[in-house]
Amino acid sequence: MTGELRTLNGEIFDRAPLDALLKRRLFYTESFEIYRTASNFKGDTKGLYDYGPPGCALQANVVDLWRKHFVLEEDMLEFACTMLTPEDVFKTSGHVDGFADWMCKDSKTGEYLRADHLVENVLEARLKGDKAARGVKVEDKDESPTDAKKNKRKVKDIKIAKLDHNTVTRYEEILARIDNYDGTELATLIKRLDIRNPDGNNKVLPPIPFNLMFKTTIGPSSASPGYLRPETAQGQFVNFKKMLEYNNNSMPFASASIGTSFRNEISPRSGLLRVREFLMAEIEHYVDPEGGKKHARFDEVRDVELRLLDRHVQLAGKSDLRVMTIGEAVDTKVVDNETLGYFLARTKLFLEKIGVDLGKLRFRQHIANEKAHYAADCWDAELLTSYGWIECVGCADRNVYDLTVHARRTGEALVVRETRQEPVQIEEWQVDMDKKKLGPKFRKDAKAVELALETLSQKERALYATILDHRGSISIDVACLPEGQAELGKDLIQFVRRTRTENIREYTPNVIEPSFGIGRILYCLLEHVYWHRPGDDARGILSLPPLIAPTKVLLVPLSNHPDFNPVIRKLSQRLRAAAISNRTDASNASIGKRYSRNDELGTPLGITVDFDTLKDGTVTLRDRDSTKQVRASADDVLDAVIALVHAKEVWADVFARLPEFRGQSAEE
Amino acid sequence: MTGELRTLNGEIFDRAPLDALLKRRLFYTESFEIYRTASNFKGDTKGLYDYGPPGCALQANVVDLWRKHFVLEEDMLEFACTMLTPEDVFKTSGHVDGFADWMCKDSKTGEYLRADHLVENVLEARLKGDKAARGVKVEDKDESPTDAKKNKRKVKDIKIAKLDHNTVTRYEEILARIDNYDGTELATLIKRLDIRNPDGNNKVLPPIPFNLMFKTTIGPSSASPGYLRPETAQGQFVNFKKMLEYNNNSMPFASASIGTSFRNEISPRSGLLRVREFLMAEIEHYVDPEGGKKHARFDEVRDVELRLLDRHVQLAGKSDLRVMTIGEAVDTKVVDNETLGYFLARTKLFLEKIGVDLGKLRFRQHIANEKAHYAADCWDAELLTSYGWIECVGCADRNVYDLTVHARRTGEALVVRETRQEPVQIEEWQVDMDKKKLGPKFRKDAKAVELALETLSQKERALYATILDHRGSISIDVACLPEGQAELGKDLIQFVRRTRTENIREYTPNVIEPSFGIGRILYCLLEHVYWHRPGDDARGILSLPPLIAPTKVLLVPLSNHPDFNPVIRKLSQRLRAAAISNRTDASNASIGKRYSRNDELGTPLGITVDFDTLKDGTVTLRDRDSTKQVRASADDVLDAVIALVHAKEVWADVFARLPEFRGQSAEE
Repeated sequence: MTGELRTLNGEIFDRAPLDALLKRRLFYTESFEIYRTASNFKGDTKGLYDYGPPGCALQANVVDLWRKHFVLEEDMLEFACTMLTPEDVFKTSGHVDGFADWMCKDSKTGEYLRADHLVENVLEARLKGDKAARGVKVEDKDESPTDAKKNKRKVKDIKIAKLDHNTVTRYEEILARIDNYDGTELATLIKRLDIRNPDGNNKVLPPIPFNLMFKTTIGPSSASPGYLRPETAQGQFVNFKKMLEYNNNSMPFASASIGTSFRNEISPRSGLLRVREFLMAEIEHYVDPEGGKKHARFDEVRDVELRLLDRHVQLAGKSDLRVMTIGEAVDTKVVDNETLGYFLARTKLFLEKIGVDLGKLRFRQHIANEKAHYAADCWDAELLTSYGWIECVGCADRNVYDLTVHARRTGEALVVRETRQEPVQIEEWQVDMDKKKLGPKFRKDAKAVELALETLSQKERALYATILDHRGSISIDVACLPEGQAELGKDLIQFVRRTRTENIREYTPNVIEPSFGIGRILYCLLEHVYWHRPGDDARGILSLPPLIAPTKVLLVPLSNHPDFNPVIRKLSQRLRAAAISNRTDASNASIGKRYSRNDELGTPLGITVDFDTLKDGTVTLRDRDSTKQVRASADDVLDAVIALVHAKEVWADVFARLPEFRGQSAEE
Repeated sequence: MTGELRTLNGEIFDRAPLDALLKRRLFYTESFEIYRTASNFKGDTKGLYDYGPPGCALQANVVDLWRKHFVLEEDMLEFACTMLTPEDVFKTSGHVDGFADWMCKDSKTGEYLRADHLVENVLEARLKGDKAARGVKVEDKDESPTDAKKNKRKVKDIKIAKLDHNTVTRYEEILARIDNYDGTELATLIKRLDIRNPDGNNKVLPPIPFNLMFKTTIGPSSASPGYLRPETAQGQFVNFKKMLEYNNNSMPFASASIGTSFRNEISPRSGLLRVREFLMAEIEHYVDPEGGKKHARFDEVRDVELRLLDRHVQLAGKSDLRVMTIGEAVDTKVVDNETLGYFLARTKLFLEKIGVDLGKLRFRQHIANEKAHYAADCWDAELLTSYGWIECVGCADRNVYDLTVHARRTGEALVVRETRQEPVQIEEWQVDMDKKKLGPKFRKDAKAVELALETLSQKERALYATILDHRGSISIDVACLPEGQAELGKDLIQFVRRTRTENIREYTPNVIEPSFGIGRILYCLLEHVYWHRPGDDARGILSLPPLIAPTKVLLVPLSNHPDFNPVIRKLSQRLRAAAISNRTDASNASIGKRYSRNDELGTPLGITVDFDTLKDGTVTLRDRDSTKQVRASADDVLDAVIALVHAKEVWADVFARLPEFRGQSAEE
């Protein structure tokens, strides 16, 4: 992937005219823009975008297709959970402690900067300055696999200055592991390397952690803090028990949610790619960990080819893609298991349906230090844009992590129980507690202590058994106690190894989670389908597939002659009856101008009504991408429209069977 | 409206089995329920609900129909605006200062109570106690027009005690104007009448205002507070200028938003009726105030009959409904104008389509003290439920209020400009400012002072001209100044009456706002369509119309014989190809049990595959409401299903033309 980014017709992609088009046609627009420019306005509205009519329609169509492709196709249980979430839930999930970025404050302007991005930007600028000083050509498109997706703000003024060899090596080492530094380490780097805000060259204060969740208070009492969810997943996990019941206790199954999430980004940028409020579509697929996480429908996708960037290639410092079928990838263990592989393939098919350029799609595996500690394997579907490769879909095997932590905190058994065909003998560590003593010792917290003991894993029990044996007592975590821990002696508990006959098998399902960022997908898609008429970048086109185009058909009367009105109205009604969205442009603009507007909105088809229509009932049908037209009876044209919108035919088919129309072409 | 609430088949409505059904079938469920019951959980999760699979599908279908009925039918401009909103926007709209309820704290338990509801509940209980003491029968269904919609928690233990005549009159007077008391007045009432928390009889602390918006901070700096929107309207208003441009500056037009809003209710209750997070669908229709706010399509709805409860009837203390066509209502000025009337009629047609019982629908006009001060007229569509009449749709003529306040704050002209056919001479008050003096006096705020002067209305200018004449100076509101006001003398400004020739007409459009609470509508609808088989309240049915039923067809193989599988799969594929949602129930339960589950989910149709199917290809089709069945070829049955789902036929048509099937009826 070197060289310039190209559009569908092979020209060099230029972002500026696309941005102007999207704003002009109200695909999306900055929220509260009239306030941003108002005097005395001090609010922060960065990273907030409103979708206008074509953006809303495009999003609705993509979401609708997602629901059909995933939810309906596999009878997933759709849930709409609240965005407001009590603090406890995110304490359990780890978000309260861990969902933070380190940030630095500019010592003079007070601007906040993400600490890791700051170090990265400054060191990269210095390395570039060094190369420039040595006369080495600097490649502006940085294609390292992890860099571009962060959409960093680049340092604008590169200072040309030579560095000694050791410094270059040191900087490169730091950059290679920039994701791994904690706050203290970042503070040391910033101080030692004299990292300053590139914008003004001021010193920055030491980094502090900044939790990315929006905090609020639920209810009238200030004693119940809550957060806006940063993902839809937790709402699904806490409903697991109800879902399993609803599904008649049958496994495997999946839940799905389409909804808004929120992340208080320190410095949002890159348009829709790093925003503070965004639509997600997430699947939580629950699978029995025994038997290798097979998927019953894997054979249906076995031959789907994917372009993979696995962790071994990345660790070797390369970014070469390997093209293989998902069957091969799972067979050779490049992808961990069938269920994960199934969703990778289904994700590709979905992205293909909505019109993503498959030459700009890759699946990248997380390397060890990126992955959450509990994740067994994780792949991102990334789309190539002018901002680099953008993570649009994450597909993670989250193991038993989520259900386990919620079960521990609440005492609800989030497990599957299956009657065994044959009872089995199980040798295990059991906890014997002296409840008569525990009660008086821990009073109102006794229940919580018991729960903490009961939910210890076998591994933990074995460990504690040894400690208890050696020290005579153990400390276990019990969040609600003042010290956060309970001290328990041999008089209170014993760990005993016993054999038990098990008739019911009980297990915590593993979760495979495909998670889609709808806003990111929409933006990348718009870059992929954008091009312009050769030699005229004022005439942009969005080649959205009919299936997801905001409007399918533009109806154009030749002029505002009143005789055209009933014909146009009739056509509009007939299209609506066939559930095909259409708009009429009866403005005074020339036919060519009206079609140009229509090209910018991605409307694939146009029907023109002219004076011949009044005589013989024929209309013309225009194809957005080729600008070719055919002419036929209204019935034949409507049939063609229906076939095109439902992807039963492509334009070449229609163009071959209906007579071409060449008159009145005002495209120039 | 007296007497008991009845179900569709005339039996007395009982809420408990419906609630149990909705929970069992996961239409919706309390959010974070496993946390609510966990030990040491202190969060507040009241008023938060998750929708499960049938609830999601029902909501998606209702929203889809809303979009078709309103947005697509009238080419409204759909916008999806952010929920996160900077504080300034809600300062302008008045929500920061005014969107609050008064609440009291129980002096012992710390429970928070809404002050007006507290006074109301206690006084009503005392009046009931008085009636009981006098042996007057107490009507439990309180049908005063404004009471029931508040879903008050009723005092459970009525103390039977006589009151003297003056006290009764005094209480009744207080109750009649309970909506009008401010905090100080409520405090006085609570003290003087010794109002206590009915739950425990503790004294309460004096009421304090509680803003119902959820507050948070946007961005890393604490200097930029924000709120979660309590309605979608403001996001639309601030985009007015872009919308007008998008609409080629042509009027009238409407914008629409479907999205989540948030209100931090003091004490949420009544299930989905008073919640903290909810889906809304709002239309902002912009209309020229000149010429009586006519609507071009009013004739299409002129004959639609509505059941109206106008303000005169309410002020006379009655609740008799007047049935009239919307044409008559507008002609006789019962409803203020055609545009408002048009949306009332369209609202009725929408509610009818989704299956609302029209005998439980009324349109109630706001009386003066309920209405926002700027509203010209306002009507609520109310649905009758076991909680009383519930406001589900508000339809307000908001006049120029919203666009004016945002224009004043931001300095953006939120107006329409039209070239006049004939120039007109306009005599008006003009403001002459000495900008050379204003600059040095107000420095950085000079622009804001100028803006405040320029946006004064003609009425205000006339008033200020008089004051300036008398006092020699005036004070005008300028929010950003330290004192909030600017003191301006004759040396700085003059108001002069002049005649001006106007070629361009400039006006602020009026806003007609139909606002739908989707969650409330869904709950009321579920009460309306719920009934049970005569004499058996364990067999509930939701008679949802096919158009919005979560699933349209249940596929039932007679048994789990493998030969049925391909037939079922084929039927499912054919239905899906026709975009008809269907589910298969291949469980071991009896046919009757499976159909019962299906009735509870509101699935209108069932297709059974049995051994005769394998012989002759026929299947049975069952109607949910009548439990009648027909038997025909799969093709004929699928045709019937399509006709029924698209409302081309009703069951009686199908039953008349296809042979009845009586065998295997396991309904008993």
